[in-house]
Amino acid sequence: MAFQDILDSIYTEVLQVENTGKKADYIPEIEKVDGDKYGIALVDINQKVFTKGDANEKFSIQSISKVITTSLIFSKIGNELWKRVGKEPSGNAFNSLIQLEFEKGIPRNPFINAGALVIADLMLEHFENPKEYLLNFVRELTENPTINYNQNVIQSETENGYRNAALVNFIKSFDNIKHQPEEVLDFYYHQCSIEMTCVDLAKCFQVFANNGVIPQSNKQFLTSSQCKRMNALMQMCGFYDQAGEFTFKVGLPGKSGVGGGVVAIFPNHYTVAVWSPKLNKKGNSFYGLETLERLTTETEASIF
Amino acid sequence: MAFQDILDSIYTEVLQVENTGKKADYIPEIEKVDGDKYGIALVDINQKVFTKGDANEKFSIQSISKVITTSLIFSKIGNELWKRVGKEPSGNAFNSLIQLEFEKGIPRNPFINAGALVIADLMLEHFENPKEYLLNFVRELTENPTINYNQNVIQSETENGYRNAALVNFIKSFDNIKHQPEEVLDFYYHQCSIEMTCVDLAKCFQVFANNGVIPQSNKQFLTSSQCKRMNALMQMCGFYDQAGEFTFKVGLPGKSGVGGGVVAIFPNHYTVAVWSPKLNKKGNSFYGLETLERLTTETEASIF
Amino acid sequence: MAFQDILDSIYTEVLQVENTGKKADYIPEIEKVDGDKYGIALVDINQKVFTKGDANEKFSIQSISKVITTSLIFSKIGNELWKRVGKEPSGNAFNSLIQLEFEKGIPRNPFINAGALVIADLMLEHFENPKEYLLNFVRELTENPTINYNQNVIQSETENGYRNAALVNFIKSFDNIKHQPEEVLDFYYHQCSIEMTCVDLAKCFQVFANNGVIPQSNKQFLTSSQCKRMNALMQMCGFYDQAGEFTFKVGLPGKSGVGGGVVAIFPNHYTVAVWSPKLNKKGNSFYGLETLERLTTETEASIF
Amino acid sequence: MAFQDILDSIYTEVLQVENTGKKADYIPEIEKVDGDKYGIALVDINQKVFTKGDANEKFSIQSISKVITTSLIFSKIGNELWKRVGKEPSGNAFNSLIQLEFEKGIPRNPFINAGALVIADLMLEHFENPKEYLLNFVRELTENPTINYNQNVIQSETENGYRNAALVNFIKSFDNIKHQPEEVLDFYYHQCSIEMTCVDLAKCFQVFANNGVIPQSNKQFLTSSQCKRMNALMQMCGFYDQAGEFTFKVGLPGKSGVGGGVVAIFPNHYTVAVWSPKLNKKGNSFYGLETLERLTTETEASIF
Repeated sequence: MAFQDILDSIYTEVLQVENTGKKADYIPEIEKVDGDKYGIALVDINQKVFTKGDANEKFSIQSISKVITTSLIFSKIGNELWKRVGKEPSGNAFNSLIQLEFEKGIPRNPFINAGALVIADLMLEHFENPKEYLLNFVRELTENPTINYNQNVIQSETENGYRNAALVNFIKSFDNIKHQPEEVLDFYYHQCSIEMTCVDLAKCFQVFANNGVIPQSNKQFLTSSQCKRMNALMQMCGFYDQAGEFTFKVGLPGKSGVGGGVVAIFPNHYTVAVWSPKLNKKGNSFYGLETLERLTTETEASIF
Repeated sequence: MAFQDILDSIYTEVLQVENTGKKADYIPEIEKVDGDKYGIALVDINQKVFTKGDANEKFSIQSISKVITTSLIFSKIGNELWKRVGKEPSGNAFNSLIQLEFEKGIPRNPFINAGALVIADLMLEHFENPKEYLLNFVRELTENPTINYNQNVIQSETENGYRNAALVNFIKSFDNIKHQPEEVLDFYYHQCSIEMTCVDLAKCFQVFANNGVIPQSNKQFLTSSQCKRMNALMQMCGFYDQAGEFTFKVGLPGKSGVGGGVVAIFPNHYTVAVWSPKLNKKGNSFYGLETLERLTTETEASIF
Repeated sequence: MAFQDILDSIYTEVLQVENTGKKADYIPEIEKVDGDKYGIALVDINQKVFTKGDANEKFSIQSISKVITTSLIFSKIGNELWKRVGKEPSGNAFNSLIQLEFEKGIPRNPFINAGALVIADLMLEHFENPKEYLLNFVRELTENPTINYNQNVIQSETENGYRNAALVNFIKSFDNIKHQPEEVLDFYYHQCSIEMTCVDLAKCFQVFANNGVIPQSNKQFLTSSQCKRMNALMQMCGFYDQAGEFTFKVGLPGKSGVGGGVVAIFPNHYTVAVWSPKLNKKGNSFYGLETLERLTTETEASIF
Repeated sequence: MAFQDILDSIYTEVLQVENTGKKADYIPEIEKVDGDKYGIALVDINQKVFTKGDANEKFSIQSISKVITTSLIFSKIGNELWKRVGKEPSGNAFNSLIQLEFEKGIPRNPFINAGALVIADLMLEHFENPKEYLLNFVRELTENPTINYNQNVIQSETENGYRNAALVNFIKSFDNIKHQPEEVLDFYYHQCSIEMTCVDLAKCFQVFANNGVIPQSNKQFLTSSQCKRMNALMQMCGFYDQAGEFTFKVGLPGKSGVGGGVVAIFPNHYTVAVWSPKLNKKGNSFYGLETLERLTTETEASIF
């Protein structure tokens, strides 16, 4: 069956399922979004794009940005990175602070908030204009020059981000943050506020399906080995406390964000992005997971 | 390069590396083993066997048995299994007890001791003669009728197994163990005491490389989907607190045991077992991991 | 106002308060008890006894026995005791296991279950017939030869004591239990099953109000300094996760048990025991605390 | 023996003991202090002052200030206070963050940093010029108008206070801090920076030995019941993770600070302050505890 047919049929199927998810309520700008939005975009290895539903509407990528910043730092400093952050899954959220204490301020992996804050600190260290650099990189990967930070989202997160402020100060007390907490948070909220469409997102992650090569420019951004490792990291740690469930049911590496976006990678085959703002109890898009589970079943895609 | 050449060359390379590991010291029977033993066996998808070093000496498979019992229960009761045990990685060992408390006696996954004890309890529930059944199953998969339980190891573990006794009683206090603690521990120590060679072990795990079909008999032991899920579980949770590191460096699902055995699966390609009793600080065979990292690099094997 | 008048008036007052407590439900033998029982006994420094309500009915002293065994061991081995168990309050119950892990099997104090199990182990080590010895000691302090262990309670606790079995095995894995888990649990369930009346209990604790001297025999059981330390321990750790609340409101050292008993000591003045089986959410007798709070307010008793 | 003789003899004795303590090293201003300083001041219930050693040199009272701010808020809003902060001991430091998480941002007691930050927030809420008010109050209690904040210490703590910043942000994420984190920290660092002598400190705490009445003015600052409760709180929670040890050995309520000060209260008898900057491993003045243990033994002072 062709990809378009599969997307069409899954889209219809998923809409029959009662969406018991709820929008994230702690970022007012995100809570405003229409909860019924639902889009899918799949980009195959030849850069052919297939879409269904609201695949061309922008949304806040939030935590999905952690993969992009981590890959930028990995590309820049290589395995030095792992002195500052681990690469093990984190168990449940409840334990994150005690683990940080126990592990002397070294976050378990770059995709939990603590780890992403350390990566943000590294971005400040290794790039002269990190915000500009990040934005240009995302525009390059997506070939979409309109991609931007959303100032309202930044404002909204800054005002409510006491837990992130706690984390960054706590890690700094272990000397694993070099810049001032406010600077790190400012960069972090910028990265989270990036808005793009499902099509952009699926394109953006093509580099991970393509052994580290940016398809448009044929530039080797990550080595093949680094690319595999980024995928391994996403597999282990990409879905908060539901990484096992996702691996189990979907069988592909990927990443989700509280804005309702999910992206998954079938190495050497395709990338796929789904957006639907209502989240399940673990903080992952309810329809997003329904969609991907069906997609990998029907395409018999699984890395296992 | 042919598999045999690769094994030969890796074997030589690894022996150059200083082995900074130490044998597990809490099971006297295992501590007695010669620490310099080192064997590799690879079985390809056509059941062709390649070996190097001490690949035909038996060792105690210990925690590797957890994959076998879990797959037996998964095959028997399907997804009902996940009501009794989770499928998420467990974070660090330090947190295991607090997680059990927090999650009301439901272990995070079947490959931590807590989870394996629940699986042992399920074995007692769902098989009439579970010890006999397990042994016959392993003999069938390996085509080796000499495989057996080691009574000295059982004795040794029973006498020193206060932490496992603590776990099983703790889980029982949440009603997630149905049988008497002693019965569960007795079965558990039996499964851990199974002895086999690298060749046996690589054969035994062929079923997971072969979409759930037992190659010898062509019997569908697990559905294709269940098989993928077993592989996903091994990927996420197979290497204690080093699952991320293993996934990152080796890129294949697998499982290790404190007896020094490690097994990995490259779906649709091969299984490989390594044995070397000295363990790194995380409890995984030091040479075992060195071997597998080189193997996947040289064969460019990785699911990612 | 004379003690009898005070007891009479408090008794009447407390009965006006709605008892929102619930009987402990995990020991069937204790759940059977009539929840409306309510008795008070006060013994002044001259051994004069004042009572009100069901002060002459026996009940299971449960955790109150921990004070008695601890004082026996303290009297026997002195400060050696503190190598095996701490003397710090324990924070909330939730943390007890993680603290045990973190503190290498040394329980925080002798009045949490973990600590009492270590004390039970010490009883087995230092007394030839510890059960007999304990019983004789209690009979001596109370001058009541009918005091005994309740076999039904022992049976009931043994059958349901999986959490205690977990604790004792866990501590033994750190080598801080010398005897077999079953022996330790057997002794522990015996001590908890002791039954006495409010009058017995108030008499039994006179030794702590009397600088360590047993009033009947004038025998110096504990040195004056040891006696003060037992009182200090009760003050800090006597009321589970409500030690602070009790100290704050009642201002006297004491100990409670899940059988609904509470005993408090006003050094050099009196001891008082209350029994009422319904417990508040923290596991302390609801009427017991109401009674003691009123008593110390009206008698202006407080060590502070 | 008269108090002066006792102080003289204890002073000599303690100086014979090798001081294995170390100055706190995380506040540069405090690390500068001469580690050999050692002073004692005792003020009896008639306001007679006895001193020995460096009893008239000022030092940073640090955490001792927590008792003063807590009593100001308790005096101002009464039991409303306990909606914002608990009154239970906190177990070990390691657990403090996990406890905060588990208990939804309600610190266990006002004398751990988390609790003191909530009290600081309440000071901002209930006093118009809280810094001025606090200073005037301390000057009134000590009759010493020269007492002041130390701006260098404030500066020093602000620059290094990432862990406190983490705490205040974390608590604010649970809505239990009303003001901006920076304001709360600013007040908190001010209170900690107050400098006074042993004589000042012993005078300052007379109100707690005197049933809540300020001796100089005969003003009832706390009700008698509130005063007892402040003492009970100090007993339970005054010495970090050594509250039990202190209660056990000294038997009096008190409070210590990382500046090397310790103060203890024998209700209706005396207050005593000791200063010696080198701290034991638990963060309490090494000579301070040696001194108080001897003092209560020799004066047979103990509330138990």
